[in-house]
Amino acid sequence: MAFQKPPGTQDVLPGNAELWQFVEKTAREVCRRYRFREIRTPIFEATDLFKRGVGETTDIVEKEMYTFEDRGHRSMTLRPEGTAGVVRAYVENKLYGEPDISKLYYIGPMFRYERAQAGRYRQFHQFGVEAIGSEDPALDAEVIALGYAFYKEVGLRDVTVEVNSVGTPEVRAAFRAKLLDFLLPMKESLCKDCQARMERNPLRVLDCKIDQGKFDGAPSILDSLDEACETHFSRVREYLDAMKIPYRINPRLVRGLDYYTHTAFEYKAQGIGAIDTIGGGGRYNGLVADIGGDDRPGVGLGLGLERTLLLLESQDAKPAADASVDVYLIALGERAERAAPGLAQAWRDAGLAVEMDYQGRKMKALFKAAERAGARYAAILGDDELDRGEIALKELSTQAQRQVPLAELAETVRALINE
Amino acid sequence: MAFQKPPGTQDVLPGNAELWQFVEKTAREVCRRYRFREIRTPIFEATDLFKRGVGETTDIVEKEMYTFEDRGHRSMTLRPEGTAGVVRAYVENKLYGEPDISKLYYIGPMFRYERAQAGRYRQFHQFGVEAIGSEDPALDAEVIALGYAFYKEVGLRDVTVEVNSVGTPEVRAAFRAKLLDFLLPMKESLCKDCQARMERNPLRVLDCKIDQGKFDGAPSILDSLDEACETHFSRVREYLDAMKIPYRINPRLVRGLDYYTHTAFEYKAQGIGAIDTIGGGGRYNGLVADIGGDDRPGVGLGLGLERTLLLLESQDAKPAADASVDVYLIALGERAERAAPGLAQAWRDAGLAVEMDYQGRKMKALFKAAERAGARYAAILGDDELDRGEIALKELSTQAQRQVPLAELAETVRALINE
Repeated sequence: MAFQKPPGTQDVLPGNAELWQFVEKTAREVCRRYRFREIRTPIFEATDLFKRGVGETTDIVEKEMYTFEDRGHRSMTLRPEGTAGVVRAYVENKLYGEPDISKLYYIGPMFRYERAQAGRYRQFHQFGVEAIGSEDPALDAEVIALGYAFYKEVGLRDVTVEVNSVGTPEVRAAFRAKLLDFLLPMKESLCKDCQARMERNPLRVLDCKIDQGKFDGAPSILDSLDEACETHFSRVREYLDAMKIPYRINPRLVRGLDYYTHTAFEYKAQGIGAIDTIGGGGRYNGLVADIGGDDRPGVGLGLGLERTLLLLESQDAKPAADASVDVYLIALGERAERAAPGLAQAWRDAGLAVEMDYQGRKMKALFKAAERAGARYAAILGDDELDRGEIALKELSTQAQRQVPLAELAETVRALINE
Repeated sequence: MAFQKPPGTQDVLPGNAELWQFVEKTAREVCRRYRFREIRTPIFEATDLFKRGVGETTDIVEKEMYTFEDRGHRSMTLRPEGTAGVVRAYVENKLYGEPDISKLYYIGPMFRYERAQAGRYRQFHQFGVEAIGSEDPALDAEVIALGYAFYKEVGLRDVTVEVNSVGTPEVRAAFRAKLLDFLLPMKESLCKDCQARMERNPLRVLDCKIDQGKFDGAPSILDSLDEACETHFSRVREYLDAMKIPYRINPRLVRGLDYYTHTAFEYKAQGIGAIDTIGGGGRYNGLVADIGGDDRPGVGLGLGLERTLLLLESQDAKPAADASVDVYLIALGERAERAAPGLAQAWRDAGLAVEMDYQGRKMKALFKAAERAGARYAAILGDDELDRGEIALKELSTQAQRQVPLAELAETVRALINE
């Protein structure tokens, strides 16, 4: 009987794990510069939190959540996105009571039971940030710039930014009516999804890939903005210009989550064939109050890490995974083999990455193993050398070999590596 | 309506998150030296995997698992420990087909529905390693040394190692009979837990904290080892000596999981009051076959990170969380404020950690905010300075201030920081 990973999940194996480490390290470094600090919230939360935070009528809540009853008969759900949990933690831990606003980031797994397809996972991973406590449009621009910097630092090419203003709930209600006037006459000609969306969220219809061509002459939400929305959006654009972030205004951009106000934005990149959305976010001024906290404005983003890695691969921009070994210890002879673990330990204590053999292999196989491990040096110890307190040190790239006193090996290699 | 985190879970907030980062970074660095490479397996797995891998009659499987049915009617369980998933991935991804053995590590959340108590969480975090593919006792010693090195590098003092051999299943069956002869006459005098354990796993009775005093004269498993077990165990001890790992032999040490063979070990440290077990592991030569793979021997460990952090705190050994800001930008005046986001972006692009204000605060409040952020420098920009293309740079520790050309600020600060 062989077990398999659950459908829609992945094993990240050595060789690939180093890429994940690189992407995460880059996210942390970018957050350091923008002064976002890490928050870690639980993998699951009360189901009601997501109903409230994500929206009862969204696809996520209606069809995609991993919901279960715990042994205390509480309904829990594996988090399908990161914002609701962070906002819950912001409120529960009274971060609104601090003198400064909260600039938070998270990196971790999320869970949605979606139809299995290439590049879509049921356990997927996001890097996200949330800035809570200020309405300053500088913060919208900063969050957009942070995401852009992340993609740049990671090595992704040709990432474009699209921005829009989705206004306030009042602005959207007025626009919704205008838009329905435009859409209703063509309802029958639209795709099934659009027909369903027309009831629930007609703004998303304009974003449809299938019906895209039918919407020339559709009203634009940007013509419906009130003065406050107008000012906020123009300030965001002004800051993006000053920050030298290239962006395009897309008045049809609406995100899949219900809670956005004012700014909404997405990052797109050339994938295999189509242009893909690889991340996005927006401002959510009503969400903190919705989740039971004081009314504080917020703005955030969420970037899919699987997509980022896939695109890096398709652009041949995968960074080299550094998992190399400093010294591969080759012990030949019974006494040398018995001495090997103690020697390896001493060199590791001195900070070197050391590998050795645990399979009783012969010299030729060991040199191959050293190569596979990307070892810089092989340290070769026979019984005779052990008796003399010496060891042979061979640089694998040049095959240059020298004898080194056993007690000085770690020091010698460290000096050579730092040369 | 205010939401709360699920019982038994934690929010890790900024200030504390940096400690987690430090502990994880240390784990990765230690694994680099010992050449263990990261593997990431899903957060949940098929429930049967844990029944098979952890053992149907263990407390974990009987009482503590977070089990749920997914939308495809499969029984899934949030992983209660790390080994079963890693071994499943080893088998499913055919890592046994590679020429070298697999030396793997993981860091991540685990889930057990335990009674809530101080220092025990239902979502907790482990750093673990698994070395699969060799019976070499050098590998048992290496894994023990790796855990010891982790605690040392993290800064924990007075960690002790206890080792034992629990033999093979055959050795254990013979010892079990001997032990029952000793225990049965005193059964009524033992605690409830011990009475229950006597049926299921009498070896664990000897490990009981309550009845500890009653077992003088109990048989020792070390007297029941066969020659192969004997040789393996003495070789492990010899290597530990050569590695200079201080350890104590504890013939009563039995781990809570059923799958160990030969070596079992634990790390203990002085907590608040009692001596706590903070991690442990052992060899598991039958597990890979049990999980449906070819029969490959393995050895691993799992260390609790919450316990590690708690002990660091109780030993006043918490490392300083470095989350400091290089430059806090203080813009005074309308034009200066409008210019601030673009300037901050340019400095961040140059690699500096930059913070600014988003709350329209006045000068005095801003200097306080800069201090709270641990900023090294404040960069003060008024409208006049903006016109002149200058900015005031103030070192907060010395209050020394100088004028710097605006275009040279990032370069100047970088040079000062690297001085």
